[in-house]
Amino acid sequence: MKTENNLRYYEDFEIGEIIPVGYKTITREEVTRFAEEFDPQPFHLNDEAAAKSLFGKLSASGWHTASMFMRMYVDSVLKNAASLGAPGVEQLKWLKPVFPDDTLTGRYHILDKRVSQSRPGVGILYGKAEMMNQDKEIVMTFEGSGFMRCRDSELSV
Amino acid sequence: MKTENNLRYYEDFEIGEIIPVGYKTITREEVTRFAEEFDPQPFHLNDEAAAKSLFGKLSASGWHTASMFMRMYVDSVLKNAASLGAPGVEQLKWLKPVFPDDTLTGRYHILDKRVSQSRPGVGILYGKAEMMNQDKEIVMTFEGSGFMRCRDSELSV
Repeated sequence: MKTENNLRYYEDFEIGEIIPVGYKTITREEVTRFAEEFDPQPFHLNDEAAAKSLFGKLSASGWHTASMFMRMYVDSVLKNAASLGAPGVEQLKWLKPVFPDDTLTGRYHILDKRVSQSRPGVGILYGKAEMMNQDKEIVMTFEGSGFMRCRDSELSV
Repeated sequence: MKTENNLRYYEDFEIGEIIPVGYKTITREEVTRFAEEFDPQPFHLNDEAAAKSLFGKLSASGWHTASMFMRMYVDSVLKNAASLGAPGVEQLKWLKPVFPDDTLTGRYHILDKRVSQSRPGVGILYGKAEMMNQDKEIVMTFEGSGFMRCRDSELSV
């Protein structure tokens, strides 16, 4: 069970590690589809309202930006790791608007790690996420913890 | 312009106000559709993997839960307010898993407000969001700021 896969476990992550999360170009259709379902404010839905907004033009919901980072992090890290979920994030900052056709990239910087005292076999990674656009502007940052199975734990995940 | 609508402006929100955000029943299809696009971890996608996870059964991505709160907040508050977006949130906590067929509700508690020093005509509301399930368990909380146009500002939003 524990050796027949190539998953990264808690022990395989190192403090100081900086993990790139690839690239994602966001389309106008994605911006408006997310906004229609989750954040139907005019500046996320139509150009005229957006032009008069603080953003200046149609921009993605901040929750969409965070969700896109999650997808990039899953594809780059978690799909090959013994991930057990996450309890939350801190200091989620939307620093710049994200516009249709922006190409986003990012990285996850592991700042700390420890084994859970209350849940045997569960490790906790603490890190900082950063997302940038094609002009190297940081559009979003947050910090947060993630649970990761320890290599020799009895957890079946 | 400023009197022909029923929008709530910065001045119309009061510190201490607690705003209910309605109800939302989440379906299995919504859980897996969001997860496929943004958080394709096995415990958000299939029952077998979820049964072996810390969550015990198929659960929604935390980003999905946050996005659903946003939709409820838009429908209850922002669609009738002079909202100008938000710079971020703090202490986003996923306290309990959200499962298919859960009926979620929530409230937004306005904790503080002030007029922006750097952006004339922009007010800042600071509040705490809470989301509960049908068993009155708090599943998610976060705090955060939102920008709201002041009633007599020259902003066209």
